[in-house]
Amino acid sequence: MANIKDVARAAGVSVSTVSRVVNDSASVAPEKRAVVEAAMKRLNYRPNSLARALVSRQSNCIGLMVGELDSPFFSQLMRGVDDVVVDGGRYLMITSGYHEKQREEKALDLLQQRQCDALIVHSKALSDERLQALAASGTPVVFINRLVPGYEDRSIYLDNQQGAYLATRHLLSKGHQRIAFIGTSLVEVSDGEERLHGYQQALAEFDIPFDGDLCVRAQPTEDGGSDAMSRLLSTQQRFSAVMCYNDPMAAGAMGFLLDSGFEVPHDVSVVGFDDVVITRYLRPKLTTVHYPIEAMGRTAAKLALQMLNKTPRMSESELRFAPRLVVRQSVKTFRE
Amino acid sequence: MANIKDVARAAGVSVSTVSRVVNDSASVAPEKRAVVEAAMKRLNYRPNSLARALVSRQSNCIGLMVGELDSPFFSQLMRGVDDVVVDGGRYLMITSGYHEKQREEKALDLLQQRQCDALIVHSKALSDERLQALAASGTPVVFINRLVPGYEDRSIYLDNQQGAYLATRHLLSKGHQRIAFIGTSLVEVSDGEERLHGYQQALAEFDIPFDGDLCVRAQPTEDGGSDAMSRLLSTQQRFSAVMCYNDPMAAGAMGFLLDSGFEVPHDVSVVGFDDVVITRYLRPKLTTVHYPIEAMGRTAAKLALQMLNKTPRMSESELRFAPRLVVRQSVKTFRE
Repeated sequence: MANIKDVARAAGVSVSTVSRVVNDSASVAPEKRAVVEAAMKRLNYRPNSLARALVSRQSNCIGLMVGELDSPFFSQLMRGVDDVVVDGGRYLMITSGYHEKQREEKALDLLQQRQCDALIVHSKALSDERLQALAASGTPVVFINRLVPGYEDRSIYLDNQQGAYLATRHLLSKGHQRIAFIGTSLVEVSDGEERLHGYQQALAEFDIPFDGDLCVRAQPTEDGGSDAMSRLLSTQQRFSAVMCYNDPMAAGAMGFLLDSGFEVPHDVSVVGFDDVVITRYLRPKLTTVHYPIEAMGRTAAKLALQMLNKTPRMSESELRFAPRLVVRQSVKTFRE
Repeated sequence: MANIKDVARAAGVSVSTVSRVVNDSASVAPEKRAVVEAAMKRLNYRPNSLARALVSRQSNCIGLMVGELDSPFFSQLMRGVDDVVVDGGRYLMITSGYHEKQREEKALDLLQQRQCDALIVHSKALSDERLQALAASGTPVVFINRLVPGYEDRSIYLDNQQGAYLATRHLLSKGHQRIAFIGTSLVEVSDGEERLHGYQQALAEFDIPFDGDLCVRAQPTEDGGSDAMSRLLSTQQRFSAVMCYNDPMAAGAMGFLLDSGFEVPHDVSVVGFDDVVITRYLRPKLTTVHYPIEAMGRTAAKLALQMLNKTPRMSESELRFAPRLVVRQSVKTFRE
């Protein structure tokens, strides 16, 4: 591959002139710039952006750490972030921490070592202290799906408890009293507890005692939801509705019910959480809580670019997103 | 942030000794290494991996270009590649080209400029010549989902025509004769034509003339499938089965049929392609062609690591994947 010296020789200029063209310095005469650019093109010269990053201290690269590479929720997050980053003339580098402390540490290390100009971080396994240290390290950092104390102005967040409260209240208002809860077994992820609290909050409001026998936990996947429903049915507990931690679990629970000869919502009403794209494929269509993760991703990217470009930043209120109940077909009014 | 000089000072050694520790050189005495490592830890020193990459010419980073960040197909590809890359002690950097020539060029530029040690490339919009030039540029490159002439030993590929042939033959063997085809409107992606050819090949084998009126094209998404089915139904053409370009289109077509009062498969049989995870959510469960994209991603990553580590490479036959029909519930035997 051609190097900077080859270009200088071909253009009949000094290496420092080529360097100034590459770095878009104003001090190069237009005709000289044209000669250099023609030589670069002819020789298929690619400036070494690592070397440039070392000099300019800008890599043009934004780092994103997600929880999983292969879940529909994170797919939508990646897409939202990528759209804004690319529109802003920068590049996105994605890594995944898989909700495990060690892998999250490793993923953050990678992004920092590659000198990303800014980081957008979805961390569930690392402590507040660790994330505070990261935010204080100099690189602009935006947190997504988490409220990091002291860094509220760069935490993009949705109120999970409120979402589960809305969904459970919807079931209660339709006359359901025996409402099962399918939760996540991933205790590192605080969303799980927050959503359980929202469920409990709505029950309390309707004076219905919390019944631990109606709560089961499993992996937050379709298989987990299917397994949880199988366990619920085997306990012989009566219930007319089920609130699920997320949509894949709701899909799994619904599939198990349908395959076992139950009708949804006739025999059991089902509510999900997240409103990921897969819910569109379900029949009956799933009533769920809309989690605007793509919009949150776009907001995270905008904030990261604002921090980088030192332009005025969004207000804290723009970083808070409100969950919204989406009523479709999987809930019916309870009748004995 | 602490730099290498700070570490040298704190440890009471020279900068070059710290550098040798960082680069894991054998020529540092164990006790000296321990002192340096303690100082690095105390000062929270992070070696600048860009600078190291410039010196060692290894970035430890593998670049992956996918077609989309937010489709279930590419999610599974990313996951397969990431698992192997991380197990191999390296890092993955992901970009997306969105099947557009300019964006693919830009994405490849990014990966090359960041000095990735190797590239795994899913390109549909760039020409064979462009990809051949990329493969000849010095960086190890593996192509996925494409057969690049002259680089068969690093092209990981599935026979799309054979997959569509198997699916259509399945419908024909169940007595269907009027079989609609819902294709993709993305003509840049050769899979579309290959799958159409497989459909035509099976029809020809059963002596059924190809009928262009039964073929519609749309965006390769759920909305596109729904739209295509709406157009097919409005033409008043008779058909008892439909072969779809991919699973999201099949889901959309099936949804439109169900919402229009048709029963699947009683009134219309439906077949998809890819066997992405979403098909599990459909009822009836979708009969489709299994595309082992996660396994292909793992193979691509293994091959890239073999090329990098200069270890013996997989044989070409290990790079060819065969499609497989997965019979579920969305096809029934045709009766007048």
